[in-house]
Amino acid sequence: MMRVFLDTHRALMPNPMRLRLRSFASSASALKWEGVVSMVQGASRGIGLEFVKQLLEKNEKGHVIATCRNPNGATGLLELKNQFAERLNILPLDLTVESTIEESAKSITERYGSLNLLINASGILSIPNVLQPETTLSKLYKSSLMLAYEVNAVGPILVIKHMWPLLKAGGGSGTERDVAVVANLSARVGSIGDNRLGGWHSYRSSKAALNQLTKTISVEFARKKDPIACILLHPGTVDTDLSRPFQRNVPADKLFTKEFSVQKLLNIINNTKHQDNGKFFAWDGQEIPW
Amino acid sequence: MMRVFLDTHRALMPNPMRLRLRSFASSASALKWEGVVSMVQGASRGIGLEFVKQLLEKNEKGHVIATCRNPNGATGLLELKNQFAERLNILPLDLTVESTIEESAKSITERYGSLNLLINASGILSIPNVLQPETTLSKLYKSSLMLAYEVNAVGPILVIKHMWPLLKAGGGSGTERDVAVVANLSARVGSIGDNRLGGWHSYRSSKAALNQLTKTISVEFARKKDPIACILLHPGTVDTDLSRPFQRNVPADKLFTKEFSVQKLLNIINNTKHQDNGKFFAWDGQEIPW
Repeated sequence: MMRVFLDTHRALMPNPMRLRLRSFASSASALKWEGVVSMVQGASRGIGLEFVKQLLEKNEKGHVIATCRNPNGATGLLELKNQFAERLNILPLDLTVESTIEESAKSITERYGSLNLLINASGILSIPNVLQPETTLSKLYKSSLMLAYEVNAVGPILVIKHMWPLLKAGGGSGTERDVAVVANLSARVGSIGDNRLGGWHSYRSSKAALNQLTKTISVEFARKKDPIACILLHPGTVDTDLSRPFQRNVPADKLFTKEFSVQKLLNIINNTKHQDNGKFFAWDGQEIPW
Repeated sequence: MMRVFLDTHRALMPNPMRLRLRSFASSASALKWEGVVSMVQGASRGIGLEFVKQLLEKNEKGHVIATCRNPNGATGLLELKNQFAERLNILPLDLTVESTIEESAKSITERYGSLNLLINASGILSIPNVLQPETTLSKLYKSSLMLAYEVNAVGPILVIKHMWPLLKAGGGSGTERDVAVVANLSARVGSIGDNRLGGWHSYRSSKAALNQLTKTISVEFARKKDPIACILLHPGTVDTDLSRPFQRNVPADKLFTKEFSVQKLLNIINNTKHQDNGKFFAWDGQEIPW
């Protein structure tokens, strides 16, 4: 049976109500949405949550699908839901469970029929007692490396795999761009050429893998003339839960607020053209070497 | 209990014989080996086996430790063992089982006490019914990606982690080099900057991850002034089991024999200096972009 998650309140509805909503959703896919339809994966906090907020605020007619592992615990998203109601659609998606990605794709297909923007904002750097950014080769653990690859490299690409038909359908229609944009959050420390400090083996190599996967799929999008540009973004060092344990050595003027970083990144996204497909940009628009 | 594998015949010996050999091995670590001590990981066939052969042939006093998952089935290595006897030491090592790497390190420590060269020659590209080089994003599978990362990126780095003290002890002593060399077999298709054809997502991104991991550990070796240079090598397209299913579109003059490719790569290895640490070379000595 196919389950449809229109938003977090759906699970509480009685079955007949769900069925009615589903048929509404199916017919809705035939409608032209007036605004753009954006998806933010990894939206419960940090940069992902800020993307959702600014996308909703900056485009009065824009719709945003925000995904996270546990919508019921995503207080930031639930607050936005109160404010933006139908324009925000919260779906459960766990990057490590491909069936949840497929279910999100089905749900988005039924309700919207297309996507104009997909932002993969999730990422892990450290999890107490599970994943520590390494400071030396002698403390490298297979489990940390594999977890980083699963979440930082494989997960975002599986999301693109399942959203691909929706992105092709969306293209740049209704936006100031000529293409649908896929923006994967990478990091400058994922650059091999720029690696002068060493350390953080799991994080660095998972982002290098993500960069290579993104480049690889960008080649296919270009060859098939899909109206999609896939880019990689370095947000700078942003004051979020992810960076908090590592902010001590960051000069104050190099530690960005979420608001500032996401403003800059949305500026890059909105100016993305066909020929940017497969490129890796820092928050200030500069290209980063591989 | 610590198990010592001096060679594949050891397992058949009665226990008292094993103990005597072990005490011999322990005292041997105090001796200066006249020739260099090299380790080839992934030595049962293809490029790895050819490295073992040429290392034994080209250095009359050289000792080679050849590791593979199943020494008893490694007919190529067993033939070399008949010819080179004590100068070839075959050890069981499964990249995906870290304890087998640790046991190899213990065994090498007891018998030799140092390493002058470590070649990580293993690699997977396709396994019938398990891993297929991808031709499109829509056929990307998590299991393939994770397997490629485990074998092509994580495994070689875990080998270096456990051989690190042996490499520090070995440095360049007794060789024509000023450093111990770690050579990881990468591939040009792992280069992100050089990726114009797309496809092979698992293989490409696992090699990009290996490149980033190698670069990351090279930074630590340099900072600690270890007498080790860690390099990445692209062997060209070599006529082996790995490339066989994909040789159809390779021009004849671009398909190398194992003998030719390994000659070229050993030439690079023997000329490796401190300042080459962290670099990525093709078989002809040209640097490859990240």
